[in-house]
This record gives sequence, C-alpha cells and structure tokens, in this order.
Amino acid sequence: MPSYKAPVQDVMFLLNDVLGYESHGNLPGFADATPDLVEAILSEGARFCEEVLAPLNPVGDRAGCTRDGEGNVTTPKGFKEAYETYRENGWIALSMPEEFGGQGLPTTLNSIIQEFMSAANLAWGMYPGLSQGAAAALAVHGSQEQKALYLSKLASGEWSGTMNLTEPHCGTDLGLIKSKAVPQGDGSYKISGQKIFISAGEHDLTENIVHLVLARIEGAPEGTKGISLFIVPKFLPDGDGKPGARNPVSCGSLEEKMGIHGNATCVMNYDGATGWLLGEENRGLNAMFVMMNEARLAVGIQGLGQSEVAYQNALAYARDRLQGRSLTGPKNPDGKADPIIVHPDVRRTLLSIRTFNEAARALVLWTALKSDTSHRSDDKAAAQAADDHMGLMTPVIKGVLTDKGFDNAVAAQQMLGGHGYIEEWGMSQFVRDARITMIYEGANGIQALDLVGRKLPRDGGRAVMAFFNEVGTFLKDNAGEEAVAPLLGPMKAGLDDLQKATMWFMNNAMAEPDNAGAGSTDYMHLFGTVALGYMWARMAKASAAALASGASGDDRFHETKLTLARYFMERHMPETSLRLSRISAGAETMMGLDADAF
Amino acid sequence: MPSYKAPVQDVMFLLNDVLGYESHGNLPGFADATPDLVEAILSEGARFCEEVLAPLNPVGDRAGCTRDGEGNVTTPKGFKEAYETYRENGWIALSMPEEFGGQGLPTTLNSIIQEFMSAANLAWGMYPGLSQGAAAALAVHGSQEQKALYLSKLASGEWSGTMNLTEPHCGTDLGLIKSKAVPQGDGSYKISGQKIFISAGEHDLTENIVHLVLARIEGAPEGTKGISLFIVPKFLPDGDGKPGARNPVSCGSLEEKMGIHGNATCVMNYDGATGWLLGEENRGLNAMFVMMNEARLAVGIQGLGQSEVAYQNALAYARDRLQGRSLTGPKNPDGKADPIIVHPDVRRTLLSIRTFNEAARALVLWTALKSDTSHRSDDKAAAQAADDHMGLMTPVIKGVLTDKGFDNAVAAQQMLGGHGYIEEWGMSQFVRDARITMIYEGANGIQALDLVGRKLPRDGGRAVMAFFNEVGTFLKDNAGEEAVAPLLGPMKAGLDDLQKATMWFMNNAMAEPDNAGAGSTDYMHLFGTVALGYMWARMAKASAAALASGASGDDRFHETKLTLARYFMERHMPETSLRLSRISAGAETMMGLDADAF
Repeated sequence: MPSYKAPVQDVMFLLNDVLGYESHGNLPGFADATPDLVEAILSEGARFCEEVLAPLNPVGDRAGCTRDGEGNVTTPKGFKEAYETYRENGWIALSMPEEFGGQGLPTTLNSIIQEFMSAANLAWGMYPGLSQGAAAALAVHGSQEQKALYLSKLASGEWSGTMNLTEPHCGTDLGLIKSKAVPQGDGSYKISGQKIFISAGEHDLTENIVHLVLARIEGAPEGTKGISLFIVPKFLPDGDGKPGARNPVSCGSLEEKMGIHGNATCVMNYDGATGWLLGEENRGLNAMFVMMNEARLAVGIQGLGQSEVAYQNALAYARDRLQGRSLTGPKNPDGKADPIIVHPDVRRTLLSIRTFNEAARALVLWTALKSDTSHRSDDKAAAQAADDHMGLMTPVIKGVLTDKGFDNAVAAQQMLGGHGYIEEWGMSQFVRDARITMIYEGANGIQALDLVGRKLPRDGGRAVMAFFNEVGTFLKDNAGEEAVAPLLGPMKAGLDDLQKATMWFMNNAMAEPDNAGAGSTDYMHLFGTVALGYMWARMAKASAAALASGASGDDRFHETKLTLARYFMERHMPETSLRLSRISAGAETMMGLDADAF
Repeated sequence: MPSYKAPVQDVMFLLNDVLGYESHGNLPGFADATPDLVEAILSEGARFCEEVLAPLNPVGDRAGCTRDGEGNVTTPKGFKEAYETYRENGWIALSMPEEFGGQGLPTTLNSIIQEFMSAANLAWGMYPGLSQGAAAALAVHGSQEQKALYLSKLASGEWSGTMNLTEPHCGTDLGLIKSKAVPQGDGSYKISGQKIFISAGEHDLTENIVHLVLARIEGAPEGTKGISLFIVPKFLPDGDGKPGARNPVSCGSLEEKMGIHGNATCVMNYDGATGWLLGEENRGLNAMFVMMNEARLAVGIQGLGQSEVAYQNALAYARDRLQGRSLTGPKNPDGKADPIIVHPDVRRTLLSIRTFNEAARALVLWTALKSDTSHRSDDKAAAQAADDHMGLMTPVIKGVLTDKGFDNAVAAQQMLGGHGYIEEWGMSQFVRDARITMIYEGANGIQALDLVGRKLPRDGGRAVMAFFNEVGTFLKDNAGEEAVAPLLGPMKAGLDDLQKATMWFMNNAMAEPDNAGAGSTDYMHLFGTVALGYMWARMAKASAAALASGASGDDRFHETKLTLARYFMERHMPETSLRLSRISAGAETMMGLDADAF
C-alpha cells in the first residue's frame, strides 16, 4: 500500500527562508498566523492527510462511486466519515472571510493544505476543493443575502459546491452553451439543459449541493456575451435556510473514467430547476472566471501533489528493491544485490522529479503569497503588481505543473517495473488520477493560449516585464555570491531564451497570429522552466545563507538543496533552448497542409 | 467507438520506394513474395485487424480475463473466435520455417502485421506474439525432435507459447532466480518455483500451452551462469504428440493491471512440473536472449501501433469537433464554430505524433529487412553488417518507440479533452495499454544501458561506426539535391550531437562508468531522434524522386511527405542538443548525494 508524508519542513523553509512570509505580517489574517502557528496548523493538516486520506485513496479508486436507480450517488466507504472530520475541524473555511464563518487565515495556508490533500487523495480532495471554488465566486459576485445563505453553508461544509460549465457539444468554447434560463418574474429562473463532466455533481457527503450553472437567459445575445451564472441548489432553502423542496436537478449518470474514481463525475440534468442569478445578467463568464482562476491554481497544485506522492513511493521502492550491482562495485556486498538507488539512471529519474517538485512548490507558494497580497494589501501598487503576477503565473502553474506532474508520476511508476503496472502497488492510480489535471479547468493547450494570447500582451506586457526585471536583478545582485554563482550562467541562458522567444512573438505573431498558436505550448513550458529555475536560485541562496550563518539547524538539508539546484540547472534548464528552437520554427509548415492531408 | 485503418499505402511506399525491398529478392522467401503479393497479403491482414480485432479491443478492456476456482482462465468474449480465424489463415506461421509448417515468408511481413495487430488490439495480439517468440527460441536452440513436436504445434497455432522469467524478487536481475529444476534421470526435470507477470500464462484459446521457463538446475553455479531454459508444457504430449497428462503448472492468480486487460497476466506456480532442457545446461539466459531480441522488436512495434491508432482517432475528432474559431478568421463560417484542426496547437500535436509514427515505421521495416538479411543471406559480410545493425537498433526501437509511443497516446488523448478521460471514447485504453510497452521485455532504462554499455562498445564500435558512416555518406551524397537539401542542415546537426555524445562516453565513461549510466536514457533518445531523422531524409528523397518522375501516382501523398520531413527537422531534431547537454553533465551531481539524502 502506498504511503505519504507531507513535506512540512520543506514548506516552512520556503515560507521563512525563501519567500519572506514574515514580511507579509501587515496583511489581514497574517498577524495571527505567526510562523509557529502556521507550522502547528500544517502539522495538524499533514497528519489528517497522511493518516486518514492517504489510506482511503486506493479504497476510493477500487470502489468508485455508485448511483442508484433514483439518481442518488454514494461515495466510497470512509469518504463521508473523513469529510465529517475535515469539516468539523474547519479546514474548508481556513481562508474564507470571517464574516461568513471562515477563519480568515492566509490563502497561502490553504494552498499548502491543498497540496497535501491532492497528494494523499486527489479524488476526495475535489469535494471540498469545489466548495472553495464556488465560495470564491460567491464571495466576489454574490449579494449580501446570497453570501449570508450560501457562502456560510459552504464555509461550514454543511453544503458543498459545484461548477457547471461543460455541455456535450462544448467545453472550451463556452459561447456555444445551450442551457436555458427562463425568468419567473419573482427574481428566480427556471433552468433547463444538460451539463456533463460535473465533478462532485451528486454525492452523499452533504445535506445540500450548491450548483453554479452557466446558462443563457431567454433572448440573450448569441455567443459568450449572452451567458449568465446561476445558483441552483439541489434542495431549495426554506425560510430558515434549511434544505427544503427537491429542485429538479439530478444526476443522469456517472462517467466511467480513467481515474479519480472516488469522485463522482456526473451528467447533470436540469429540468426546469429553480435558480437565481449570481452577478450580472449576461456576465456569467466573467463571474465564472473568478472561480476558474482559483480552480486553475488548485489544479496546478494537484499536479504537484501527485508528482510528490509518486516520488515518495518510487523512492521507497528504490531504497528497498535489491537488483543488480552498482557500476562501480557492490554497495551492499552482504546482500545478493544492491538497492537500485545505486544506479545513475534511477537517481536521474528520482532527482528529475524531486527538483521539479521542490521548485514547483516554491512557485505555488510564491504565487499564493501574491494572491494574499493582491486581495488583502492596502498598498495599491503592491496589490496591482501581485495581481499581475497572479494573472501571468496562473496558466504557467496550471499547465506546467500538471504536464510535468503527470510525466513525473509516469516516471515514478516506471521505477517499479512490472510492479508499477499492476494496481496493487498504487503507482498506476497516481498516473491515472494525475492525468485529469492536464485536462480539466481548461486543457493545457488552452492555458498556453491564455498565456501567450492574453497574459503576455496585457497592459503592454507589464506583468512579464516585471518578471524579467526581477530575475534579471537577481542575476546582477548575486553575481558575486560564491555559493550561487555557478547557477547563474544556466539561469541567465534560460532567461535569455525566454526573452528571445517573447521578442519573437512580438515580431512575428502580431501579423500572423498562427505563429503564436504554433509556439504557445512550448512557450508555456519555456516560461515554466525559467520560473522554476529562478525558484532554485532563490532556494540555493537561502540555503547558502543558512549554511554560512553556522546555525542552519540542519546543514544536511541545506547542502542537499544546493546539490538539487545544481541538478536542475544541469538537467532541466537546457530545455529552454529546445523550446526556443521550436517556437522560432513558426506555423508555416504546420499550416501549409490541408486538413484532409493529415 | 474508436476505429482503425491499417497504413498499407505507407508500408508499400517504404518497401518499394524507400527501403529497396526488391533488392532483397535473392534471399530465401523473398522471391515468392513479390511486391504485388506482399500488398495482397497485407491488405488481407489489414482487413482482419480493422474488422475483427479493432472492434474487440474495447470489449476485451472492459471484460478482462477471468479465472475460476480451479485456475482455468477465460478470455473475453470473441477472443477465441478471432484466434481461430487468425490461426486457420496461417498468420502465426507467416515467417516461420516451412519445414515445420510455416510459410517461410520474410520476417519483414510479420513485423508489418505485428504493427497492424498491435494497433487494433494489443492485448489480443500478445497471444500469438508470445507463440512467435517461443517458436524463435525453439527454432534456434531446440533439438530436431523438440522442433518437430513443439515448433510445428506453435506454427499451426494449435498450441501457444509463453516466456517465464520474472519472479517476485527479481525481474531485471535474472541472476537471482530461485526456481529449481531437479533431473529425473530420464532426460526430464521436475521444475518448482513461482513466476510472476506471465503474459498469456493460462487461457482458453489453445488446447495446450508451451511454457519456456528459466530455472536453476540443482547444484548449478550461483548467478546468471547457473540458469537453464526449460520447455514445460501445460499438458504433457502423449506418444502421438497430443495433449496428454496435466502437468502440475498452474495459474495461481491473475494480476489486476492498468491496461491490456484482455491478456491474462498470470502468477504461475510450478509444483514439480515436468520439463525438458532447451539448449545447453546453464546457458539458459543465452537461449532466452534469442526470444528476447525478437520480443523487444515486437514491443517497439507495439509502441508504434498504439501511437498510430491513437493518432487516427485524435485526427478524426479534430476534424469533427467544432469549437472556437481559427486565429485567422472563420474557416467554417456557416457552422457555429470551426473544427479544431484549424488551431495551430492541435496541428502541432497531430504532426508531432504523425512525423514520429511514419519515421518509426520506416526504422522498424529497415531493421526488419536487416533481420531477414542477417538470417537468410549467403553473403557473410552483408549478414554480419545486418546483424550488427539489428543489435544496435533493438534497444533503440524498443526504448524509443515505446517511450514516445506512450507519450503520443497521451497527447492524442489530450486532444479530446474530457472525452479523452472517460472510457467511452477509447483513448484512455490506448494510454493504459501503451504504458506496459515501456516496462516489459526489459524496462526502458535497461534498454538504454544495453545500448550504451553493450551495443556501443561491441566489436570496437563496429555497428555504431557503420551507422555514422551511412548517415554521413547520405549527407554528402545528397548535398546537391534541391528537394532534400533543406533537411540536411538539421540532420547534420543531429548527427554531430550524437557523435559528440558518443565521443563523450569514450572519454568519460571508461574510467567512470557512472557517467555512462547517467547519460544512457538521454543517449538512447538522442540516437532515436537521429535514426528517425535519417528515415525522414530517406523518405523525402524517395518522395522527391517520385514527384520529379512525373509519374508518382499520387502527388499529394509525396508532397505531404516532404512537408512532414520538414516538420520533423524543425520540431523533433532540435531535441538532440538538449540530450547532449544532459549527457555532458555527467554523473557527479547525482552520485554526490547519499541514498538517504533523497
């Protein structure tokens, strides 16, 4: 049975030594959350994920969800009990507004817990995760009355939330949505239509489910400008805010999927269900985007979580499995063979995963702190810069962390040989579960287009210029730092490639937009590699400082960081020049073929 | 439901226009197999794969195999009928020796049919595939008597074969094998032990199963030098060569796997089962290697097959699915949206897969023709050179075609978005089935070590030097060919990187073998990219010649080839410099960490 240990020490290193957590103390919610308290909270969350969620992970995979003839859905054995514990301990509302029953703690803490949950049990974690997404949309777009009713129920976890976007004929292109909303004259609407791939659409964890549903009000304009967002509860709240009459929204069937079997992926049928407008008429996509950005960051974190748990289990196997001898002579001479961790190709695999994971975690937390700054800071310039960063990094984190997270799960599975392919060892589940993260909340090709087509040019390139400046300044400021200097050459080469690619788009994609589309995925990964490399440079600097101080507390920990930073620069960073080559090849060859010549 | 169309036109182009099939006419078996006959045979095989095997593929995935309380295994509905048809039509024995009931046709033809079968139904294709592997070992190492009895039964398909290597504690390191063989004084042995991951170990397709089993004769030396290979039939043949008494070898359980559900992966228990030595005592690994090399080529072909069928189904979806508009204005103005094949990122995905597939097919057929030359030619020098090529390319084909084949199946799945993740569309099965090909018959890390540690240095580097010479000569000879010239720059850059990497190993890995291990996987892929690029250069040359002739028969076909060749050089070939960078980074960083610092 696979196991999981949450990387609390690593997180505390990032918060305290690398990302300047304490300097955020003036933001609301941070003053109370001292580093010691943060560590205590995380340790508590870690224990729950390790001891309750991780053991339930293979259980959920095997059992899956079941639907009875009346459309009721039962989650795997143990899911409901785990949810009750989680809910009672207030985890869902960790970062939600205190006004509606939340704890008001930094979003950053929630992101950390999301990683732990996603690693321990991705399918389970989606239930509270979707509630948090729905709550985010309500917090921004809901009326005071809607917030008082729905947001507080989501915060307490008594009710859960969903996102209803996709229809059978459209997922990416939401302008094609057909679901209809007919005004009833009393402020409510009757919603009709079919939604597919609705995660947590129906289940037995909560007494009510709050569906956020995109639909078109009768007579609304065609396309994306005629779509509105509705709150459609499974049970209509009565006068006391308790679940009342059953609303005609139901689960028509459960999808049979490659993975995340413990999460109920539903076809949802709306048969004149009562709903209320959330936000403005015809501005539904706008309102949904709030939820989607939160969700995209969370999905990136899921990719990291699966990569981390796959790493841990591959590592345990590599230390344990005796097979063959080291190329430089026996390392376990008393045994019949050496543990496979002596082999360079095994170490290459492990370090490729680990150096990704640790930098990805840094990128997530850096961005989560920006999210807190953007939402909570009084300093308008700081908040704006943080918001720029968020917008820029959201597609990078979603796209790169899930693409690489999946690849890493596959690489970790490979280390177990045939044992990786059978379900007994759990590695197959990590691969099958991780696979969805590349697809949902905007397939990664869409993330790449969002980055290149929207985030780069926005505000005259302000966000990307700020990032280039920051990395460039770091390179200049640290040129004389002995411990970090060897990393700066590869880092600078990577940044140069990224800047050249950006310039190439400016020169070639304005007139020929296909040139942007043809290079978008490579650009997203190029960006990710540079951002992750920058995280390693900063981690190495922090570790070098800790070692130089003579009071690091754990020299081994910091020495390892310096080695990992070097590994990243040697093995991951050179990818940037490949990406640049491909981007510079442009669209001509691929667009030159007729569709029927494919 | 996914569909499949075997690429017969493409194969005939490769045989006739690119690889000089007709120049092999002097080899036994080729004289009868004129190009017209080959095309007729392939079309027949294609039809069977398209119409019988492909529709059974999702059926087998869903139903899987079942084992009753007595260890009998039932294959999915329809598998047995398909096997009967296939067997009766003589496909299993296509390239087997006529003396034992085979048709004696070129191995090359068999490799082509293997691709079609692997694409249409990988799990099903493994049953006859394993029989062919067992037959190959018998053909080389069996006594005349063993061949007359077992090989002819395998050729007719009345009996099937298996390979029994892996035990619970060892897969890669076969020196650790514990299964025992006790001589009975009558030429037979009693075999005892447990084998795991035995594909087609037990099933209902044939009246008997011939297990080839590695075991250690009592008192044999420790390690790999004490292992022998045994023939252990499920039913002991009686005097007439009919299945007689039940041998105590049985399926203890079926593995629950990520994919290839239609194939029975068995734990096999040998409880004093009667067996006979195949080949020499204590030379079992040697005998098994014959089977393994055949099997490794076949597994590489499986990777290609899954990549091809995944491509075809992603392409169909890309033409059909309406979503969004082209970046350069509507291409389907009367529809609500354009088909997604208008988007550059979709084309990039499709062409990355297709340019791999077509070159991989060329590499397989080039190598299959070398296999025929090596086994059938009277010209000793030609046979030796062909054998060198085979040895060198076997790990490249196995490792690269399965690594990339899997990646391609994932990329194809991605194009369907959420529809790719649910089982209904069949893309998930391609991914789950393709995944095993990276693992079995020697995990790909082992292929890379075989290439770098064994195949490169063998005979003073004769094989690799011959390959470098051939590609270098092609570059020189075609420098003036207008249609091919634009490909030669990237091709030369790739070859240079490969030669530099080879030189780097010579200079750095002799004294420090970890440097070879640290770069082995990157080297295997670097080698693969150059070999595939060379295939594109040759295909482009052939297509340019066909176009120049004014009588190509299908100008569109050849023009597309030229575009695809350019695409490969633009997008795949630049990978070589990344691989070289990583190889040159060496082992120091990764070996510098203690195992417990991971």
